Amino acid sequence: MKTKYQRNLLAAALVGVVVFTTTIGRAQDPSTSLGTGPLPSWNDGPAKQAIKKFVQTTTDTGSKDFVPPEERIATFDQDGTLWVEHPMYSQVMYCFHRVGALVKEKPELKDVEPFKTVISGDREAIGKLTMPDLEKILAATLSGMSTEQFQAEVKQWFAEAKDPRWHKPYNELTYQPMQEVLKYLRANGYKTYICTGGGQDFVRVYAEQTYGIPPEQIVGTMGGTTYGYDKDGKPFLTKDPKLLLNDNNGGKPEGIHLMIGRRPHAAFGNSPGDQQMLEYTKAGDGARLAMLLLHDDAKREYAYGPAQGLADTKVGTFPQALYDKAKKEGWTVISMKNDWKKIFAFENSSN
Amino acid sequence: MKTKYQRNLLAAALVGVVVFTTTIGRAQDPSTSLGTGPLPSWNDGPAKQAIKKFVQTTTDTGSKDFVPPEERIATFDQDGTLWVEHPMYSQVMYCFHRVGALVKEKPELKDVEPFKTVISGDREAIGKLTMPDLEKILAATLSGMSTEQFQAEVKQWFAEAKDPRWHKPYNELTYQPMQEVLKYLRANGYKTYICTGGGQDFVRVYAEQTYGIPPEQIVGTMGGTTYGYDKDGKPFLTKDPKLLLNDNNGGKPEGIHLMIGRRPHAAFGNSPGDQQMLEYTKAGDGARLAMLLLHDDAKREYAYGPAQGLADTKVGTFPQALYDKAKKEGWTVISMKNDWKKIFAFENSSN
Repeated sequence: MKTKYQRNLLAAALVGVVVFTTTIGRAQDPSTSLGTGPLPSWNDGPAKQAIKKFVQTTTDTGSKDFVPPEERIATFDQDGTLWVEHPMYSQVMYCFHRVGALVKEKPELKDVEPFKTVISGDREAIGKLTMPDLEKILAATLSGMSTEQFQAEVKQWFAEAKDPRWHKPYNELTYQPMQEVLKYLRANGYKTYICTGGGQDFVRVYAEQTYGIPPEQIVGTMGGTTYGYDKDGKPFLTKDPKLLLNDNNGGKPEGIHLMIGRRPHAAFGNSPGDQQMLEYTKAGDGARLAMLLLHDDAKREYAYGPAQGLADTKVGTFPQALYDKAKKEGWTVISMKNDWKKIFAFENSSN
Repeated sequence: MKTKYQRNLLAAALVGVVVFTTTIGRAQDPSTSLGTGPLPSWNDGPAKQAIKKFVQTTTDTGSKDFVPPEERIATFDQDGTLWVEHPMYSQVMYCFHRVGALVKEKPELKDVEPFKTVISGDREAIGKLTMPDLEKILAATLSGMSTEQFQAEVKQWFAEAKDPRWHKPYNELTYQPMQEVLKYLRANGYKTYICTGGGQDFVRVYAEQTYGIPPEQIVGTMGGTTYGYDKDGKPFLTKDPKLLLNDNNGGKPEGIHLMIGRRPHAAFGNSPGDQQMLEYTKAGDGARLAMLLLHDDAKREYAYGPAQGLADTKVGTFPQALYDKAKKEGWTVISMKNDWKKIFAFENSSN
């Protein structure tokens, strides 16, 4: 049991260290030449103001909305919120890649659908795969191996894979402004969690390196594992095709309750799969922050909705109804085009 | 992304603060007059030495078994490891208590088994309830309500309930030597988790107050929840009777993987339901600590096995086979009688 005094001491020490190390980082990182203070890659608009106001009001001990450090929880969708999701989620790219390895191990699969279509490389045919086809591909590439083997396979793919537009490793395609939000919240005592529709074990492989978020703070779509022993009696866990929780829509607050057991004070998303997480966050007492990222920047990233007349898409849809709900509920919509000075750390900051 | 240097700084600051606050605690807490240094309620035997050696070797940067701070994970079974489990698990006592409230809400249940037997108070008949009977009672008392309502009900029960032997609230029946292990590990950068066969949501209600362990660090038997809205459109989660994971036996490493995603470096238990957690812990590289508590002190607590000729029991069984396995595998068996100077904080330390 810690007393409130001890907790405050601990929080003060943490903030001190983070501010110190952030300062070190600032001297070395040219991206921060964009401005002084937190969130340098953000233009000074309503989105940046909403984040700063939320942090100030919830960390000021004199505020009626003060949040004790142990309750400072912020949850982030990943695909399309923390990094690029177009033209296709990176996990789906991984699964398609793994089909090649799978067919090498089991050559009889090369004439069996949907594996046959995937290895044909015929983009039009691949685009027509049905949901049951995709489920077969996910089950075959994400389960049946030990958790260690899976981690090694994903790690290797990430070290080699490049996205088709920028030809960069996927973890360089994180949004610099969102990295700044993660750091700003952590510097103010918030624990940052990913809450993704992607596979929990998949995201855990690279999240610490990419976002500074450890495995125990990844909430995602969860599959079961089964405990067993190898021929030498050494125990290991096998990844099962059994789905424990689909971390989308209502599954996001359900996953948050399961993994964290506390209601977030801030939540960030970009599509209808995040709506319930934002509702659940805002339904708590006091100051709560709910934000949705709108991809409206075809030049620097992508533009898709169909909200606000943007192009329609199957990947990371942002419908007009969600936009209208955000406006009605007081959620902040971030315009990538207007709110962000720069999008990627690798950009020249004068872009 | 934190550099190793930044992480070391953070760890050093944390250890500093914890040592400082521990020192403050020491001046105020008469229980620590038992000795100086860590683990004052432990006699100086092989168990105390094993814990101290493990901590020293895994936190010394010059040691080949040094564990980076972010990987320092220790998991503890609860019932019979951190607090008293006899004559019956406190959660079962809670469920029996809730049957009374349930019958008030739904009077038709008073003539339906197994509820009829529970409200009869007939101990002999209650003792003969079958596993399917118990499952009906658990489902009826642990699901069907909102997560908030459940938390409020459990909280109220804990504030009022007393155990039948010492007539103390249950959270005073934690073992002082184990509280010292939790604090000693945390002071050395370990994140302490509970990994219990008890209900995850149940234990979360009191774990922060009782053990200093926050809700996000409770791994337990997990039920599903369902997201929905009340008549005013306010979202809430309903506790489902659906079992997601039985956190016993192989379910313990499975639950650890699900909730933490890292293998523990230390694990503590007291019965066969903990065996796989200890195996999984010890199967990792480097120095690992695996400990089992043997209840061999009928005078100060309880004595049960049937290992080592102690009385047999249905609650928290410690069979001879587990004892033999521990000796063979190099796990440490803690003798409550010989290793602990005192058992409860409320005891006179001269006992």
